Amino acid sequence: MPGLIEHTERYLPIRLFLSGELEAVNEILRRQLASDLPAVNELCRHVARYQGKMLRPTLTLLCGLAARPGSAGQVPEANHSLRVLAAVSEIIHMATLVHDDVLDESRLRRNAPTVNHLRGNEMAVLLGDYLISNAFHLCSTLDRPEINRRIGETTNELCSGELLQIHHRDDWSIDEPTYFAIIERKTASLISLCCRLGAEEAGADPAVADALAAYGSRMGVAFQIQDDLLDLIGEERVVGKSLGRDLEKGKLTLPMIHFFSCAGPTQRMEMLATLADTDAEAWPSRVRSLLLSSGAVTSAHDVAAGLVGEARRELSPLTESPARHLLDDLACAVITRAS
Amino acid sequence: MPGLIEHTERYLPIRLFLSGELEAVNEILRRQLASDLPAVNELCRHVARYQGKMLRPTLTLLCGLAARPGSAGQVPEANHSLRVLAAVSEIIHMATLVHDDVLDESRLRRNAPTVNHLRGNEMAVLLGDYLISNAFHLCSTLDRPEINRRIGETTNELCSGELLQIHHRDDWSIDEPTYFAIIERKTASLISLCCRLGAEEAGADPAVADALAAYGSRMGVAFQIQDDLLDLIGEERVVGKSLGRDLEKGKLTLPMIHFFSCAGPTQRMEMLATLADTDAEAWPSRVRSLLLSSGAVTSAHDVAAGLVGEARRELSPLTESPARHLLDDLACAVITRAS
Repeated sequence: MPGLIEHTERYLPIRLFLSGELEAVNEILRRQLASDLPAVNELCRHVARYQGKMLRPTLTLLCGLAARPGSAGQVPEANHSLRVLAAVSEIIHMATLVHDDVLDESRLRRNAPTVNHLRGNEMAVLLGDYLISNAFHLCSTLDRPEINRRIGETTNELCSGELLQIHHRDDWSIDEPTYFAIIERKTASLISLCCRLGAEEAGADPAVADALAAYGSRMGVAFQIQDDLLDLIGEERVVGKSLGRDLEKGKLTLPMIHFFSCAGPTQRMEMLATLADTDAEAWPSRVRSLLLSSGAVTSAHDVAAGLVGEARRELSPLTESPARHLLDDLACAVITRAS
Repeated sequence: MPGLIEHTERYLPIRLFLSGELEAVNEILRRQLASDLPAVNELCRHVARYQGKMLRPTLTLLCGLAARPGSAGQVPEANHSLRVLAAVSEIIHMATLVHDDVLDESRLRRNAPTVNHLRGNEMAVLLGDYLISNAFHLCSTLDRPEINRRIGETTNELCSGELLQIHHRDDWSIDEPTYFAIIERKTASLISLCCRLGAEEAGADPAVADALAAYGSRMGVAFQIQDDLLDLIGEERVVGKSLGRDLEKGKLTLPMIHFFSCAGPTQRMEMLATLADTDAEAWPSRVRSLLLSSGAVTSAHDVAAGLVGEARRELSPLTESPARHLLDDLACAVITRAS
């Protein structure tokens, strides 16, 4: 199975089942995006290379498995709606990656050139629009208006998070509540919805669906904190995408917010001098060493670890099952990943 | 009533009714786009200034009125679904304007600065996404999955038209069929859907809904030809938006395609020399004079006029009514407008 829980060897039958389901999800996604225009197909094939972790589809499917009432130990059945929902979440995510790369002027994603770098910003803006439109269209084929409505609510939330983030660009006094408001909207809202829809699709009790939505929300925030950490202190070769973009684009994330609240005056002045000269080749490594020595990296990581703990505790109302264990593993993997 | 048929004084009662309906549509649109983020509200208010003609909502409402079986002469009733559909079409249109202005690097729209000019490309890309998301969300509140599906199909079509256009950027041998394939997708598909949905919402016979969809499709193509003509030979002050962007962005439109097929060798060489030096201040006026003297403007206008004739003939299955007359007027206005 591709993705974050690839490394575990436990629960092989369920992992094999999930692996097959993710293949089926990808088939739905490919069919949905197929166009009569070869140029569009070529771009969609390129964007499919960005699909690494498939976190959102995996969560939709796993929550669908874990939340089935009284299903522990049973061999799961294929569920078309669940697969479609998983594909919809992945297409929405792909659209955000394509547009984010335009905004961040990124050149690299999953060790491949970004669409904007390869074909220009115009093509990337339009391809993102094409993906968003196809996500909504695919969702509407389920003939379940309430699902369309909730996906629409969540993408509204997601877009407003991105807008809030850009509104605070170059805001050097951004505080933690604002940072969390941004990432809860732009990242956690969709991840949480994936968990909830997966659970509801499986006929879960409302309390279980709520618990899984809360699990997704906490782990989504932790996931974004780890992303923000990797942007500052990751290895570009390992992460596979352009790094240091947040600072270059004036986006202050949790490690930086912690730095400015916990660093001494000398460190602070050194950081400001470093950031004032991002043309210098060595600036990323100087930022990294300042973040590490100040304790800001550790404290941001601790916040993420605390959220992962909360996410795992949300799983307690679920019956013991391999799927529940995988959800637990997944929450842990979110903050130990190096890419 | 704002828009294209403002100038006519006929059918006052129906015009007053439409005017009130468009106000109600705008109220739905404003409520839908309202955010808890003041920065988003400010941008949405700015984009609302682009709403000039409100062609798509007007068509949705008018087709809804004209297609009601056996309704000639009756006072129409307010129809919430029709208003929502009208608002959805306008929000989709607003999103395309915001993203188009990014692609075209335009600075002016309806005599106001574009979002990209005012707040940068990033904000404009995200605001466009916010609008698309809200259009789908608003549509889903109707609880009518088939409508979501058709809107999704149409926006897929719209995006693929834009992608096809950009794929043919700087293609100096683009032919008429390709030009028409582009504008049928990017412009006529949504206009046609507005007419069809308006008709179907009113309970029209399938033949009448088909006729109105065909009317919308023809007039949509004519509308885009007129837009493309204005970009080449309009007055920026009157049109209210940045002109000459198509050529600067390597988009060859019908007048230019006609020019290259009908101009003599001297005119052709003069055009190529002019286009090779778009830094020269006088290039737009030289292009304009070449297009006019070659007959390319007249022949492109004739094609649009032919399509308007076809659109008007599609109205023949409809019962005689003020709404039908206004649809007829509207088709004519599409190619006589100077902005």
